Amino acid sequence: MKPVRIGILGLGTVGCGTLTVLSRNAQEISRRVGRRIEVTRAVVKNIDKPRPSITDSAAISEDPHFVLDSPDIDIVVELIGGVNSAYDYVKYALDNGKHVVTANKELLAVRGNELFQVAQDKSVVIAFEAAVGGGISIIKAIREGLAGNRIESLAGIINGTSNYILSGMKEHSSSFDEVLSQAQQLGYAEADPTFDVKGIDAVHKLIILASIAYGVPLQRVEDIFCEGITQISIDDIEYAEQLGYSIKPLAITRRGLDGVEMRVHPALIPQSNMLANVNGVMNAILLKGDAVGKTLFYGAGAGAEPTASAVVADIVDVARVLTGDPDNRVPHLAFQPNALSDLPIVSKGKMIAANYLRLHAVNRAGVLADITKIFGDYGISIESILQKSSSGSREDIVPIVILTQPTAEENMQSAQQQLENLDPVVGSIMRIRIENGS
Amino acid sequence: MKPVRIGILGLGTVGCGTLTVLSRNAQEISRRVGRRIEVTRAVVKNIDKPRPSITDSAAISEDPHFVLDSPDIDIVVELIGGVNSAYDYVKYALDNGKHVVTANKELLAVRGNELFQVAQDKSVVIAFEAAVGGGISIIKAIREGLAGNRIESLAGIINGTSNYILSGMKEHSSSFDEVLSQAQQLGYAEADPTFDVKGIDAVHKLIILASIAYGVPLQRVEDIFCEGITQISIDDIEYAEQLGYSIKPLAITRRGLDGVEMRVHPALIPQSNMLANVNGVMNAILLKGDAVGKTLFYGAGAGAEPTASAVVADIVDVARVLTGDPDNRVPHLAFQPNALSDLPIVSKGKMIAANYLRLHAVNRAGVLADITKIFGDYGISIESILQKSSSGSREDIVPIVILTQPTAEENMQSAQQQLENLDPVVGSIMRIRIENGS
Repeated sequence: MKPVRIGILGLGTVGCGTLTVLSRNAQEISRRVGRRIEVTRAVVKNIDKPRPSITDSAAISEDPHFVLDSPDIDIVVELIGGVNSAYDYVKYALDNGKHVVTANKELLAVRGNELFQVAQDKSVVIAFEAAVGGGISIIKAIREGLAGNRIESLAGIINGTSNYILSGMKEHSSSFDEVLSQAQQLGYAEADPTFDVKGIDAVHKLIILASIAYGVPLQRVEDIFCEGITQISIDDIEYAEQLGYSIKPLAITRRGLDGVEMRVHPALIPQSNMLANVNGVMNAILLKGDAVGKTLFYGAGAGAEPTASAVVADIVDVARVLTGDPDNRVPHLAFQPNALSDLPIVSKGKMIAANYLRLHAVNRAGVLADITKIFGDYGISIESILQKSSSGSREDIVPIVILTQPTAEENMQSAQQQLENLDPVVGSIMRIRIENGS
Repeated sequence: MKPVRIGILGLGTVGCGTLTVLSRNAQEISRRVGRRIEVTRAVVKNIDKPRPSITDSAAISEDPHFVLDSPDIDIVVELIGGVNSAYDYVKYALDNGKHVVTANKELLAVRGNELFQVAQDKSVVIAFEAAVGGGISIIKAIREGLAGNRIESLAGIINGTSNYILSGMKEHSSSFDEVLSQAQQLGYAEADPTFDVKGIDAVHKLIILASIAYGVPLQRVEDIFCEGITQISIDDIEYAEQLGYSIKPLAITRRGLDGVEMRVHPALIPQSNMLANVNGVMNAILLKGDAVGKTLFYGAGAGAEPTASAVVADIVDVARVLTGDPDNRVPHLAFQPNALSDLPIVSKGKMIAANYLRLHAVNRAGVLADITKIFGDYGISIESILQKSSSGSREDIVPIVILTQPTAEENMQSAQQQLENLDPVVGSIMRIRIENGS
């Protein structure tokens, strides 16, 4: 099948991230989609600005109509941001029957009701997974994955900058201003952080989430309760901690007897709540549906590649809409049946893991030397050995707990067998693998 | 548009859950899909067994061909389980050009390669979101939401029974057998728990996850490293805890230099890892993609309604495949444009929240009485008051932290204003709302 041709408006952080991901994973993506995805045209503000070599694959212009009016383009990807020219370009693209993928939450929150109507009239799609939660596919999860549910409530950390600042204040006992300027140096906060720290960005995202959760039109920004994090002091963070709470920047919406409640503000949440442990720039959304119960989605809410992950997912979805052909459906096993891979599966003995071993041994001189020699013989490094006090009926027999470094399963099995044959070792050895979450 | 007609094979826990959810949320679902979903026929093992009144909506038979051969049925939903007759029925349905929705992980893990080929040949869909992770839409997330990523690894708690047992052993310092029999009484473990506690159920699910993550064919069960949780003792759980770890039943797959590693076993994971805090029957999958980074999906992995949530999502997806009509696409705002709701948005002043207040007051007799009187005047209940020691330059001024019960925003605003006007109260009051995560 012929490739899907993409025109991108804006090659900033997310635009370049999208080019990188589409290029690096070109093979993986076409194995999934069944056709190639090619960025053939891009529009930038200043054509003379240096940019990564990845952009060489697309023809570049400063004129938006270079993309908008090109009959070769199947999907227009809007990554400019803001509501003014972005609105004009998206409206123009839709009016001309082009599908649009956008990461622009402000545009959708403020003018979405109108743009979706245009898209509907023209039988085209606006896809906007990247507008909320970066790489977390929360739009798809609510709109499709939870389509059978009556959504009851949603509470999310959906502004990474605010979460980074409050997390940093807590971790380093620093002031708001100190962490903000550090965040700006690291690129986690804009030079003008108003939209983030005042809660406005979260309001835009909440408006979109509430609409897809309950099926209400996109609400007006000024109707949503909004409080930023600028007033939070380190004292508050510490007092909250003493009381068993963390302070987090939350966006909340709940369906109650009186209607839908929507609000954005910092909140104390119990430390046992999963959201309390979402730190740094990470985002998470805790959602309650009447059938599914509580469900949480966690991931990077911003950044070049996490946002590109969502943009590319949208491109893939829209590409499947381009024809009604059954071959264009999501493949059962995610990849096209004729593009499955014969990537080998690692045999059981070769798999690598660190290990926890608990054994019982007679408490006498030289036992630990005998034990550690066996580990050495099999090239297994020991992380730590702990001799516990005797708990059984025989006081001369003590439990010993050993943690190993990562090692091949077959070596560990042989060593374990030798250990069990050791005279001072009593009974069998309990072994549990250790996963460090990498 | 005419309704989508469903035939269900099997009205056990999940089958009845599916009927309940489809019936209770009929309006919500048709607002999303644009057409009604009707269960018109169902097949059961024993027609005389009493069942909830919800089943009255469907005609019931003991003969599977009552569903399989009905020309009126658009989608066959297989909720029998096992590989024998389930295989025959699913194959028959596909051969006759019917779409299939199934929750049967064993069937897919063991015979999926063959069944997906049949579906492909007949241009029909097998949807299986409910086969892994219950209500967590992990299949959709990997297959569609992360379609732009090269998946690097995945580690999941995907067997709720095993997680319930290990969590229970830790929480109550109980033995494996004690918690297992309690789990059986509560319906969290089968009478024969072999598949769950021996890791076989998790192997079936891991085979499906690895296939959609990497695009490899479904692997053979006997090739996957599999160790159950039956050998774990309370000693191991306690020693692990002292070392900073939790023991969790994990399914792991990772793409390495030598190929794909796949294994199911209990593992020590650091307590700081989000998976370490997934307890009870809850499931969670931590996934790493090259673009998105780390992302976590959490929710109920089993149970009547969470599983039904996934079954219904699949029905909705397949219903959209039934025609290539643009009107059948996922609506932009999740609900059909002509079915948006005018559910009211609660005004800012009426929203309810508990509050944390931090104020500074002159440390003299009667101050707390003045403060608490104001709360009383506005009908605001106080949860606790903590007087902190002075930290500033004036020793006679102390910080006071007050937690309130949930109260209306407008009352709290008025009370706060009165408090700030109180003579002994110095400066302004810091207020942060409390969310308890309900």
